[in-house]
Order: sequence, then structure tokens, then C-alpha cells
Amino acid sequence: MLGAGSWGTTFAKVLADGGNDVALWARRPELAREISQSKRNSDYLPGINLPRSLWASDRLHEVLDGAEQVYLSVPSQSLRENLRIVRELIPEDALIISLMKGVEKGTGARMSEVILHELGVDPWRVAVASGPNLALEIAKEQPTAAVLSSESRETATEVALTVRNSYFRSFVNTDVIGTEFGGVLKNLIAVAIGIVDGVGYGENTKASIITRGLAEMTDFSVAFGARPETLAGLAGLGDLIATCESSLSRNNTAGRLLGQGYSYSEVIKQMNQTAEGLSSVTPILELALSKGVDMPIVSQVAEVLAGTLAPRDIAPHLTTDDLPQGE
Amino acid sequence: MLGAGSWGTTFAKVLADGGNDVALWARRPELAREISQSKRNSDYLPGINLPRSLWASDRLHEVLDGAEQVYLSVPSQSLRENLRIVRELIPEDALIISLMKGVEKGTGARMSEVILHELGVDPWRVAVASGPNLALEIAKEQPTAAVLSSESRETATEVALTVRNSYFRSFVNTDVIGTEFGGVLKNLIAVAIGIVDGVGYGENTKASIITRGLAEMTDFSVAFGARPETLAGLAGLGDLIATCESSLSRNNTAGRLLGQGYSYSEVIKQMNQTAEGLSSVTPILELALSKGVDMPIVSQVAEVLAGTLAPRDIAPHLTTDDLPQGE
Repeated sequence: MLGAGSWGTTFAKVLADGGNDVALWARRPELAREISQSKRNSDYLPGINLPRSLWASDRLHEVLDGAEQVYLSVPSQSLRENLRIVRELIPEDALIISLMKGVEKGTGARMSEVILHELGVDPWRVAVASGPNLALEIAKEQPTAAVLSSESRETATEVALTVRNSYFRSFVNTDVIGTEFGGVLKNLIAVAIGIVDGVGYGENTKASIITRGLAEMTDFSVAFGARPETLAGLAGLGDLIATCESSLSRNNTAGRLLGQGYSYSEVIKQMNQTAEGLSSVTPILELALSKGVDMPIVSQVAEVLAGTLAPRDIAPHLTTDDLPQGE
Repeated sequence: MLGAGSWGTTFAKVLADGGNDVALWARRPELAREISQSKRNSDYLPGINLPRSLWASDRLHEVLDGAEQVYLSVPSQSLRENLRIVRELIPEDALIISLMKGVEKGTGARMSEVILHELGVDPWRVAVASGPNLALEIAKEQPTAAVLSSESRETATEVALTVRNSYFRSFVNTDVIGTEFGGVLKNLIAVAIGIVDGVGYGENTKASIITRGLAEMTDFSVAFGARPETLAGLAGLGDLIATCESSLSRNNTAGRLLGQGYSYSEVIKQMNQTAEGLSSVTPILELALSKGVDMPIVSQVAEVLAGTLAPRDIAPHLTTDDLPQGE
């Protein structure tokens, strides 16, 4: 496992609790030491006891030596440079599994595309994990379901069998495109939900935005070759609902601040860290434009970010037609 | 408008705020007087000021005289006997619109089926309204979207144009079956969500149940002739999310008490009123059986009600297969 943030550490715990030997790479030696010795990651998972079998190191070759499966959970914008560093250390025939949700700025590439490009491996060696997976809840061993996706059903199944345990269920599909875009797009809808939350609107408004947001996510992903069922499943709708309902989500928080009247730059300053949803708006709208896909909710989020639409107007403008329409 | 509960009164307000002349029938004379004179319905909509133009009466003929559209918002199990009383008073060619979400016990009939049967009118005269429509939020004029459905698109459009105003958007479809079943089935999934809430599980678990619950709602409805898009829209997914996320929902509350360990009979006693979702479990499972539709979540709710499944086991049993499956 490369990356010892809250998600990487939680996923390492899921794997270890499923009976696997897991080694975790942490960039900072003191964090690696805390995990290995105290079985804690107090910065990212306060209060959580990690499995006794889990160990960590800041030395890549120690962690990667003999690995059969390599899980990646690094910041999405640093994936490419990280891959260039580890390329030579990854054992031949190891499976590579992305736990990341994002698109690369500039290229608009999905995480698995960056992996394929930088490692030059066959697509059957690559899988991605997604679903309604708030890290802290999984770390507390609350029942959770996830999707493992690979172009190769055998790979997806092999990984799914590896990552399940008593509180973590895994499903498989072969729609990598839909699985990855679901994880990216839900962040944008979560920002919209945060905005209406900040304005003070209620569950009716939010349910309408989630419903029409899912339609928007589906249209976009299908235009890039995804299957609509994937978006209706755990990696689309499931992840969307969990993210929109979590008060811990950074995207939600960023939206809420916008809804309360803070400007984009004030929000960035106040949050002191990035919200993936905010930085994805521009690349996603560019990709949508390239395929001629209409994204009314994401476009309205962009307008709120630009200061050209008042937050309280985002909901009534869900449709601007005068005559009643089909849904 | 027949029925001056929270939903009937709220919908009457929506209509009046859209510029229509609205007369509201209340069974109790003192409630009719309060609405007409004080423009309040303090029992059902405390704190809400009703439009000045809205008036109410306990006399059916006063309310129905000259009505072009008749909206029905009475308890679903009393619809048939209410229709027998008003049958002769409904003006010829008036449209009949159901605001109710339920199936009749014993017959398993949808509300529009009861209307067609008791009034003997043409299907084009009947429409139903549904969507993510928590009454109190609409009464507070928060932005809301709804679906108006009729076998006749003209009727659906005519009604949709009547019920829209600055805070209430209406969409149309011609899938009455899907629109009505969406409103019934979401209550059952909301009970399941309440149960896991009561147990103490978090957003991952709930998002998984909503996602797989929607699949279950869709399978069921499609078996009866509904279109899957209807369930993916406001009357299915939208209503499901609003109901599951509302702490005010009776179905949610009933589930939460079950999840905390109270028995079915204790819940009924404690709630002092019915939760539609609890009484729909048996008729819906009977209907599902008649079409050979599998409903794992609803079946598990039935088991919790029967006391044969522990509430905390409802989530891990979402799937009982040993091998990873497609979603």
C-alpha cells in the first residue's frame, strides 16, 4: 500500500483484517514508526487501533519487495511523479490497484490511465476500487460495500476476494471508466449539495439535486464509454449519497461555505487544504464540452465559484424552461 | 382539495400561491374555520401562514361545486369509502389528482386504481403527484420539484401547469405505475434505513442500502409495467433520498425504534400512529411473490418486524453469496 493518509491506512486495515500480509509506505519516517510500533495513525485516524499484523516503512523497496498486489492511495495530482519513482520497484506481474478519485489537471486523464501510461503495463494488471467508502466509518468497522473494477473480470474478482472481510463486502464489474468517473463526478455534485445546505434549503431540494445530478453524471460517463448501470450502482449513486450526506466531506464543507456567502478564494483560505471537487470543475466541464454533454448543475457550481451566480439561485434554476418537461 | 392534513394543506397552499382559486375540505368544522378565518392549520402546519385566498369548509358540496380539478389527500386506507361519499358531487369532466402514497390492504390496489374503480372515469381524467416532497419544507417555500403523471400527457401537462409556482417546479410523465409504486416502495426502504440508523451504522451502510434499495424498487415496479427511468427520477430516487434523510419521516422513526431493539408491537404503541411503510410490507411482499421478484431488503425488514432477524444483522446480510458478484 502506497500512501498512509486516512484512506490508505484504512484500506490497509481492511486488507489486514481480511487475513492478508500488508506493508504500508508512509512518506514520513515518524509516521511509519508510529504505525509499526504503536499500531496508530493519530494524525489521520485518531482513536483507531490498527491490526497488530500491519507494518509500515518509509522505504519504498522494503514495502514493495515481493508484493503481489500494489495499492495506490497518493494525492491524485502527485500520482504521475510517484509512479516514476516506484516504477522499477514494482514486482513483475503484481496487480496495481488505484484507490484514488480524481482526474489529472491538464490532461484530464483518469487515475488508471495515468497508471497504464506511466507503468506501461497490460490493462488486465490494473484495477480500481470505489463505492460509498467514508474512511473513518470503515476504520470503525461499520458494514460497507465497495466495487472492484478491472477490464479483466478475473483480476477484479481476485482483488475483490482479497479485500473482503467481515465488515467489508466487495462487488466486481468490468466498467473501469464508469467506476472512476463516478468517483470524480460525485464530488462536484457534493459541492452543489453543500451550497444549498449553506443557503439553508432542506431535504426536498437536496434530493432533487442528487437525482438530477446522477442523471448528469450518467450522461457524462456514458459519453466516454461507461455503462449506465455502473452509475446507478455503488460506485455512482452509492458514493454520491454517502459523500453528499457526510458532514465530514471536504467537498460538502467547501460548498457550505460558498452557500453561506464566502467567495472561492476565501473558501480556499479557510479550508487550508484542497477539496477535490473544486479543482475538478474546470477539467470536467472541458471534457463535457469536448463530447457535447450538458451539465447544468456542474455549470451552476462553476458560476457560483466565479461569483456570477448567487448561491441561493442554484436550486430554482435546476430547470429554466417555462413548460413542464419530462424528467 | 379533499383532506386538510399536513400534505393536503401544503398542496392547497402551493396551488393558491400559483394563482389558483382553492377550496379545502376538512372533516372537522373547527379546522375548516381555523383555516378560513385565521389562515392557519396549527395542528398540522404549526407556524405556517396560509395564503389569504385559501378557504376551507367541512361541507363537501361547497368545496366540490364547480371544481375543475379535484385533489385527493385522505388516508390511503380510507380512500375507497371517501370516494363512495363524494362520487355524486364531483363535477363531470373534472380532473382527479391523487396526492396519496400507499396501496390498499387486501386488494393491493394503487390509489389511482381505486379511483378508476370507484368513480368509473376514463384514465385520462386521473393524474397522480409524487416526488421528494416533505410537506413542511414546501410549506416553508423551499425549492422543490415534483412529478405529475397521467396516462394522458395532456392531462399531466395541464395539472403540472396548475401546480407550479416560484418555489415549486413540476415535471410530467405518463408512467402512472412507476410513479405510484415509487412513492409506496420508498417507505419500505426508509424503514430499513431507520433500522440501521437505530443500530448506529453510518453513511456508507445507508448509501449502500439506498443504492440496492433503488434496484429492488425498480425490479418490482418494472415487473408491474413501470419504466425504469421513472424510478431513477424524482418519483423514485428523489423521493427515496428525501424520505430516508428526513428525521421527521414516520417510516424512518419506526425503523429507528426497531433498530434500537423495540419490538414491532412496542413501536406501534410508542408511535401512536401508523407508519405507511410498516403496513405496506406484507401487501408488497405478496405482490412481489406473485411476479417472482426478489426483494432482499424488504424481506429483511419483514424478518426484523417478525423478530426473526436481529436489526444489527440487516446490513451485513445485504448479500449472502460467498463469491464477489456483479452489482
